[in-house]
Amino acid sequence: MIRYRIIFSGSGGQGLVSAAIILAEAAVMHENLEAIQSQSYGAAARGGATRSDVIISDGPINLPKVFQPGILICLTQEAYNKFSNLIRPGGLLISDSKFVSTTRKVDARQVELPLYQTVVEEIGKPVVLNICVLGALIGMCGIVKKSSVEKILAVKFPPAFMANNQIALDLGFEMGFEYAE
Amino acid sequence: MIRYRIIFSGSGGQGLVSAAIILAEAAVMHENLEAIQSQSYGAAARGGATRSDVIISDGPINLPKVFQPGILICLTQEAYNKFSNLIRPGGLLISDSKFVSTTRKVDARQVELPLYQTVVEEIGKPVVLNICVLGALIGMCGIVKKSSVEKILAVKFPPAFMANNQIALDLGFEMGFEYAE
Repeated sequence: MIRYRIIFSGSGGQGLVSAAIILAEAAVMHENLEAIQSQSYGAAARGGATRSDVIISDGPINLPKVFQPGILICLTQEAYNKFSNLIRPGGLLISDSKFVSTTRKVDARQVELPLYQTVVEEIGKPVVLNICVLGALIGMCGIVKKSSVEKILAVKFPPAFMANNQIALDLGFEMGFEYAE
Repeated sequence: MIRYRIIFSGSGGQGLVSAAIILAEAAVMHENLEAIQSQSYGAAARGGATRSDVIISDGPINLPKVFQPGILICLTQEAYNKFSNLIRPGGLLISDSKFVSTTRKVDARQVELPLYQTVVEEIGKPVVLNICVLGALIGMCGIVKKSSVEKILAVKFPPAFMANNQIALDLGFEMGFEYAE
């Protein structure tokens, strides 16, 4: 049985809700999987660490919230501090190497990637960071094919956005693929 | 205690996920409330009725899924057939008068609005239907101020989209306000 439980965490405005929705849509529309996606907004969303949850499976999913993520992505220190204790033993923790210092002991494989820095250096602005993160995730873990994500991006964004989205997705994919197991 | 449990239902591509996210963000960013938003994707999303859930409260919310919506919005017959039995007794069912014939007995106040038809007649295309739906919801039920939604729209969309979004929001708000209690 396929079942991925993923939390994207970071701060508001990083596009983590979009990244989660794109992943869920790619899984459902192009890979015949089921997906549930959710996010909480609250005091945290007004300034602190935010999270966006996705569950992807080849069978029915009942609860939309992820209690123990097999994969946790942390883009900020605050998100790491708040969510790293949730990770499923033996899971995978992906963090941004510029913003997160992974000082805690967690029973998980930890991979630090220069996501933010790469996007800013190669594209000049962090606006497509979320797409780069998504690329890294699927490069490292599979979950869905890159072409499935590309099809969703092509439908979701105006053509003018596609070039930077594609670069960000490719950059992330390459970074992640180096750590694929 | 404030607690709204809302389901937007219809078909894929109607923008119901966006509508739910905009409502959640307006509540959290500009009204100091808490919100959780979620959607399932699966066999249903590949053609059938889709739903997008929001819970808004002035206190903590634990589960992101809405089991019994106090407010159910149905934009298609298929969504109505699938979800109308979920409604909380004494709740509110808002449906599109062109696409839904409300043939069932439900223990809820039923309001039929010409949402689709009004958007197509006044704007010429249905692309902002979701914003009109959101306008109708807040016109009828309050939940958040119209200005709070406008602030989210202004941040979320390029300026070129604002004119049609504003018209759609205003049209919906007026339609809904006629039924406010």
